[in-house]
Amino acid sequence: MLRVRGAPAIGIAAAYGVCIGIQDLPADANHEMLRRRLHDVADYLASSRPTAVNLFWALDRMKAKTESLRHTKSVTEIAEALFAEAQAIHKEDRHICRSIGRFGQELVKDGSTWLTHCNAGGLATADYGTALAVFFAATESGKKIQVYADETRPLLQGARLTAWELMQRGIDVTVICDSMAALVMRQGKIDGVVVGADRIVANGDTANKIGTYGVAVLAKAHDVPFYVAAPVSTFDLRLSEGSEIPIEERSADEICLGFGKRTAPEGVKVYNPAFDVTPAPLISGIITERGIIMPVNRQNIEKIVKMG
Amino acid sequence: MLRVRGAPAIGIAAAYGVCIGIQDLPADANHEMLRRRLHDVADYLASSRPTAVNLFWALDRMKAKTESLRHTKSVTEIAEALFAEAQAIHKEDRHICRSIGRFGQELVKDGSTWLTHCNAGGLATADYGTALAVFFAATESGKKIQVYADETRPLLQGARLTAWELMQRGIDVTVICDSMAALVMRQGKIDGVVVGADRIVANGDTANKIGTYGVAVLAKAHDVPFYVAAPVSTFDLRLSEGSEIPIEERSADEICLGFGKRTAPEGVKVYNPAFDVTPAPLISGIITERGIIMPVNRQNIEKIVKMG
Repeated sequence: MLRVRGAPAIGIAAAYGVCIGIQDLPADANHEMLRRRLHDVADYLASSRPTAVNLFWALDRMKAKTESLRHTKSVTEIAEALFAEAQAIHKEDRHICRSIGRFGQELVKDGSTWLTHCNAGGLATADYGTALAVFFAATESGKKIQVYADETRPLLQGARLTAWELMQRGIDVTVICDSMAALVMRQGKIDGVVVGADRIVANGDTANKIGTYGVAVLAKAHDVPFYVAAPVSTFDLRLSEGSEIPIEERSADEICLGFGKRTAPEGVKVYNPAFDVTPAPLISGIITERGIIMPVNRQNIEKIVKMG
Repeated sequence: MLRVRGAPAIGIAAAYGVCIGIQDLPADANHEMLRRRLHDVADYLASSRPTAVNLFWALDRMKAKTESLRHTKSVTEIAEALFAEAQAIHKEDRHICRSIGRFGQELVKDGSTWLTHCNAGGLATADYGTALAVFFAATESGKKIQVYADETRPLLQGARLTAWELMQRGIDVTVICDSMAALVMRQGKIDGVVVGADRIVANGDTANKIGTYGVAVLAKAHDVPFYVAAPVSTFDLRLSEGSEIPIEERSADEICLGFGKRTAPEGVKVYNPAFDVTPAPLISGIITERGIIMPVNRQNIEKIVKMG
């Protein structure tokens, strides 16, 4: 079951997951026991979702914290410090969302209409999202916008979550099927696309929810700018190109039984990749909490990511 | 409710519908009463679906039949002739499907993999389809092929009907969400696309199930040939360009309540066009019962359509 989704939210949940995983260590546990437990828990959590890099980023950060205190603090003190670190990751994400919104909204003209795919909003992060933060910040700054939300098969995060979040904040939102994005672009209705990301590698190739790549190709074909909004923690500079990103494949039932009703013949073959990779040349810019990477290339990415 | 779907099937149903509509005419009805009733019934049937031209084609054919017999036959004889005409339309469609299959299968290489969108098979025609006829004929001629079937939101004709028809005939079929077509093309899995059509106008612009246009743009971007398969009765040479084709918009509930379960917030705006138009330059060829129109242009279309 998919209980936690959205790359930043997965990172936050993983950090807290580490705290839960070590909380039943015996009172007299030594550093070696803590280290072993921490690695077991991290390995277990790391096996849950292969694509979103924020998961591994958060686990690495928790491990690094432990290492840094290993020779100076007691096991109890380290456990407390790890909980504080998880809270820090959580709190930082709030600021990150706001900054992404602030930078991103500069791209949004008053009266413009946008398209988004899947959900990169408050239900995927600690605060009000990455892609949706751009729309929220634009609205807060007094701009009137319209948004088309792809329903995003198979799990309908766009219809269920994005539409709800935008309605909550009074933004004019229209739900369409994924297959209608091409038509609304051709009708000239779309001024720009913003989506979130699960992993961005050194050359700018970006993994995100299945269907994002198609939207990017369509945007290019219709001269519509295509932006990705993501925190710096979503970048994975150890990977050089998008083809190296592991893509999670999920159960056929998500497509054939997703609505509690069989919608394809019993026993039919199904292919259900949960993500795809959009090549950097299709991405007009990447909106981060440190500024907008534009044009998207290795050098500009490195400058932003190593700024920290 | 959508009870009859698929352009050729709609034409056949309309022809029989005319017969049903006139069957309770009084025994002493005169030619004028028949003419008036025929026009009322035809107007009613014509109001059911605006996009598929086969509907209007079949109704025109039934009217023309009536006119041709008006001065030589009794009302009863004309009613019998109209039933025979409906049967003829029905029977012709079987031959048409076979011919489309025969011409189309020449494009299909042994071992190749194809993509289709929506359902243009036996469940949309009198026999084994238009787009699917190509796959059936290729298989009958001993070629081994694979097919990816877009599930085709919102009504899932691909997952429900196309997958079933292909499985019935032992063809290797894989269901994907519409949003996955771009990825499988990028992976190099797709050698060609074939879809049906609801109306093809003089310049080759083609209305078909919503999402077809997006698939065509993606096919072009990945250098994948994109074919339309349709009988000559689907051509509407009175219209010059695709923008003149009326596009049916359907209920929001098809998207938000399609599976008996609410999948978008109550009251959200929804846009649900049932068809889109693929511009001729994106179409590699149109497979008809009289041969393949390739390249697709006014002259080649006229040559095939006026051949009859």
